Amino acid sequence: MSKILVFGHQSPDTDAITSAISFSYLQNKLGKNTEAVAFGQPTEETQYALDYFKAEAPRVVTSVSTEVKEVMLVDHNEAQQSAPDIDKVSVLSVVDHHRIANFQTTDPLYYRAEPVGCTQTIIWKLFKENNIEIPQNIAGLMLSAIISDTLLLQSPTTTSEDEDAAKALAELAEVDLTGYGKDLLKAGTNTANKTAYQILNDDAKNFPMGEATVRIGQVNVVDVDEVLARKVELLKEMEAQSLSSSYDLFLLVITNVLENNSVSLVFGSEKAKVSEAFDKEIIEDTVLLNGVVSRKKQVVPQLTEAFTK
Amino acid sequence: MSKILVFGHQSPDTDAITSAISFSYLQNKLGKNTEAVAFGQPTEETQYALDYFKAEAPRVVTSVSTEVKEVMLVDHNEAQQSAPDIDKVSVLSVVDHHRIANFQTTDPLYYRAEPVGCTQTIIWKLFKENNIEIPQNIAGLMLSAIISDTLLLQSPTTTSEDEDAAKALAELAEVDLTGYGKDLLKAGTNTANKTAYQILNDDAKNFPMGEATVRIGQVNVVDVDEVLARKVELLKEMEAQSLSSSYDLFLLVITNVLENNSVSLVFGSEKAKVSEAFDKEIIEDTVLLNGVVSRKKQVVPQLTEAFTK
Repeated sequence: MSKILVFGHQSPDTDAITSAISFSYLQNKLGKNTEAVAFGQPTEETQYALDYFKAEAPRVVTSVSTEVKEVMLVDHNEAQQSAPDIDKVSVLSVVDHHRIANFQTTDPLYYRAEPVGCTQTIIWKLFKENNIEIPQNIAGLMLSAIISDTLLLQSPTTTSEDEDAAKALAELAEVDLTGYGKDLLKAGTNTANKTAYQILNDDAKNFPMGEATVRIGQVNVVDVDEVLARKVELLKEMEAQSLSSSYDLFLLVITNVLENNSVSLVFGSEKAKVSEAFDKEIIEDTVLLNGVVSRKKQVVPQLTEAFTK
Repeated sequence: MSKILVFGHQSPDTDAITSAISFSYLQNKLGKNTEAVAFGQPTEETQYALDYFKAEAPRVVTSVSTEVKEVMLVDHNEAQQSAPDIDKVSVLSVVDHHRIANFQTTDPLYYRAEPVGCTQTIIWKLFKENNIEIPQNIAGLMLSAIISDTLLLQSPTTTSEDEDAAKALAELAEVDLTGYGKDLLKAGTNTANKTAYQILNDDAKNFPMGEATVRIGQVNVVDVDEVLARKVELLKEMEAQSLSSSYDLFLLVITNVLENNSVSLVFGSEKAKVSEAFDKEIIEDTVLLNGVVSRKKQVVPQLTEAFTK
């Protein structure tokens, strides 16, 4: 049986990395021959979870079609967030919780998307539907992704199914949900030893909006000013990347995970669209986004509308 | 609570019509306010099932955005097979068993696709997952769609899940699977009182392939020659439609449901692609497609490859 690679999006976050691990585990239990891989190294937050639950990071790859014919996607579907050679392989299945765009297949496939806070919540349901037990360390990784994506169940993307999954997984993982959750989130907020490039790109995605290409990075902190103190350095890096990759707009959403607020640093020729989308003035290259913590629910739809209306 | 419309593809077949009915029933049981509608009248086969199980045909509509803001799609996802004003409404959910193409949303949604023979097989699983009982007449309609889409579980698209669903639904519907199945399929093969337009379009879909637009109709018969006897009339109608709708290729797949074989009538400037796709000569505007009964699995992928390689 030929091998199938399972992977999340580029610039992988905790959900992208751990969903590849848990979904690959499930598929292997169901008789497939899969391997979890990743388009990047784990972030500090993800590494904290991997260390805590004594799990290996997935092998890092830069392409897939040289080794396999078939793949399974988790936590993404849009081609520009996927393997650069995604058009050369056949997508057997997708498990995701994002909008669907720039995704096309020749054949019918298994596609499971639900508007929940985290891919792992859907994978948790798939384990149950298939009557497969979740081992303690896999449960811990799945829980970590839910905590990460929902900011410990505080993000507006959180659903009652995420809450159910988090509670059940915390029990299986044998950890205290709130205690472990806060430690995990804090582990991901250390920006002091990160380069400007890392802060911008560790959790960044490209979104085509109308005719424009918009790149949106997000960084979680416990002190927004720690990142804003490096504004000049960050803007210079945003300019360089926008030039080399033809971004029309680059946002860095700096989210305070304790206060559930964000400030966005903005760069690019289409900057005015940010003002329009959020009805907020841009002051010294930053926009205050009160109550915004979710890129998917509170940034992308608003910006998409500004670009397409 | 504002109403949500549930519908299948244009030129609705038994799966498109009855999946709208069963999925709407399920959603209403789950607390939503939905109505099943259809982009066309039931075919004779579908009407046979509706009459047998004493069910009403869904209300026929030609657009949706004038009455609702939100919709749910069954048995299709591609924009060109959907409501003409699909871009003006928000798609809350999709249940489908086809490839994904020309489908895009702004927000996350519920998307459930599985590579099974019939949408109703997935809806049957959804009833089970949600612990909702299926009433006898809804079970009968669901069963009818599975029989129709899988040609009584003989089509290569048939999976073991379709078989499980069909058996369980036949029991709930209180009918003999094979006996009822043959009667239903035969009810759909009467072409004598159909116009050429109906034969071509009662179950037809448009597929963008490369730069070309390909229209593929399918008609089930117990005697292929009955349809081929009307070749001149059919080709004239194909020509007229190709001209008015700019089709580059028009296929009518005439399928013998008892012998599980097809003959295709072909028209259009891209006729040569059919020869290429199936490695068969076109003789007097027809191509013999041995063992072909599934448009989705045995026609569309092969043609798509010929157009895109």
